[in-house]
Amino acid sequence: MINAIATQCEGGPQMVRISKDQIIHTFAPNMTVVTEVEDGAIVLFEGNDCFTQQVRTERDALHTIDREQLNPATGPVYVRGAESGDLLKVDILAIDVADQGVIAVVPGEGILGKEVQEAIVRIVPIENGEAIFQGIRMPIQPMIGVIGVAPSDQDGPCPTDTPWKHGGNMDTRDIRRGSTLYFPVQQEGALFALGDCHALMADGEVCFTGLEIMADVTVKLSVVKKKTSTWPILEVEDSTMVIGSGVTLEKATEAAVSQMVACLAKAFNLMWEEAYMLASLAVDVRISQVVDPMVTVRAVVSKHLISTEKFLEQLM
Amino acid sequence: MINAIATQCEGGPQMVRISKDQIIHTFAPNMTVVTEVEDGAIVLFEGNDCFTQQVRTERDALHTIDREQLNPATGPVYVRGAESGDLLKVDILAIDVADQGVIAVVPGEGILGKEVQEAIVRIVPIENGEAIFQGIRMPIQPMIGVIGVAPSDQDGPCPTDTPWKHGGNMDTRDIRRGSTLYFPVQQEGALFALGDCHALMADGEVCFTGLEIMADVTVKLSVVKKKTSTWPILEVEDSTMVIGSGVTLEKATEAAVSQMVACLAKAFNLMWEEAYMLASLAVDVRISQVVDPMVTVRAVVSKHLISTEKFLEQLM
Repeated sequence: MINAIATQCEGGPQMVRISKDQIIHTFAPNMTVVTEVEDGAIVLFEGNDCFTQQVRTERDALHTIDREQLNPATGPVYVRGAESGDLLKVDILAIDVADQGVIAVVPGEGILGKEVQEAIVRIVPIENGEAIFQGIRMPIQPMIGVIGVAPSDQDGPCPTDTPWKHGGNMDTRDIRRGSTLYFPVQQEGALFALGDCHALMADGEVCFTGLEIMADVTVKLSVVKKKTSTWPILEVEDSTMVIGSGVTLEKATEAAVSQMVACLAKAFNLMWEEAYMLASLAVDVRISQVVDPMVTVRAVVSKHLISTEKFLEQLM
Repeated sequence: MINAIATQCEGGPQMVRISKDQIIHTFAPNMTVVTEVEDGAIVLFEGNDCFTQQVRTERDALHTIDREQLNPATGPVYVRGAESGDLLKVDILAIDVADQGVIAVVPGEGILGKEVQEAIVRIVPIENGEAIFQGIRMPIQPMIGVIGVAPSDQDGPCPTDTPWKHGGNMDTRDIRRGSTLYFPVQQEGALFALGDCHALMADGEVCFTGLEIMADVTVKLSVVKKKTSTWPILEVEDSTMVIGSGVTLEKATEAAVSQMVACLAKAFNLMWEEAYMLASLAVDVRISQVVDPMVTVRAVVSKHLISTEKFLEQLM
């Protein structure tokens, strides 16, 4: 079995493809790597859906599936030159989703889980860029649910269903084509993996699942030397975000806002209390998801107030 | 002292002005009304800031202010024809803010309150539609912090600093010019009041205050007969929202999403579980504020999926 295929044109970036058979279910400080890539490599990850394709019809019973196979991430990939104290920069170049997704509810899960009487599955075809749910057509907005690097020794192994400082199951809809993520590298080579794409998901992911789907994800992996961050940083067209997770939305908010305020204080040379005020005026706290073992929010600052470049300059 | 001035041109709506001296600090089931207005009246409320203008300079000490005077709302106004089981429709026509606002941090308050060593005030001038905070210019986005009606007998008196089913201190930035609110009428005449405007506030209001400011707010008050709602409904340009509050963000999310799912199930003739799935795909949960005695979120559905008219049709 070929797990990774690497090619390179003269002078161009290294191109690598990682098979969807190469998966992890835990982001651990030490992981067996699938392959090593150069700083600046372009890597295509074949992504399984969150059920590893065990749910293909509406008659597939959720209670009979192998729970050991939930939330796989493809990888990990070792990025040359990445060391603890660096950032791994991940440019999301493409997310190519399959032509069918699945959404499910399960008793006890999601924000209204106690009202769910039995597990139900709906298969959702994708046609011409639209998801068709019970006859309702909605434009797809493909995103990556699980994405991250090896955690610190201190944080220890993190199951792929859980978000934390290393990334993981952040289920953040802004993690989409055109976005750039920055992860704190904790282990040599960063050890990057991703999976669990959604064709569509609203902020909150309230029912416990999004539109779960297989997808090929193409990213560029680069090392930013000697800068680090407590939480993952996300850049989109118009803003920069700190993605924080915690046991409650309040704890996640505290985490994300705390790093944002420290950054604003440095960038604008403000007292900490003044930066806290500035955050109250100009930093939106947005819910990513409320349904995973840790919940996730993002603290969002507009590029009108501070460029991503200037934001990143504040990181040490 | 003239507390309310009413005028009316032939055939036009009644025009009423309510003095900022006419205030409440509790939305109670029974309140002494300032004035009665017709269904369809246009009412200008003179709004105090959340400190009732006790903080005018950066040297004003927050611990010496009269806490009994915090969070006043101007009113209440009795709207003729409004009865329990109706909705009060509030079109926000204008929010004219003063030329100076104030922002403050207080030890123990806000999402990072434990890191605040002492109360600090900053005065923020407003010039040419921009707030100038420590030299940083930001466009103002005036909004109403406290707005609501008399609560049900069951809910009892609600201090104006607290949001709940009757409205109150929802601190939701989408409550701005051009928006329309729908409140469940619980008491004859609705008994509507508002105050606590902000010239600017981000989602979360993380430091405990927004840019607190005096403002004249002009609204149109109309009665929608024989429709009701558990939580306030908000219509903006592109979407319809259920505004839910609770002791935690999770509880507030549960409240807002629960009403939204019930509405989607009826509107699209879906099983409840399917409507729950649809919400996971298409209903954004957004944080309004994380700092009041109850916290507030809004469940947001795009008008592309369902018009506000069709949404309101589902209410009984």
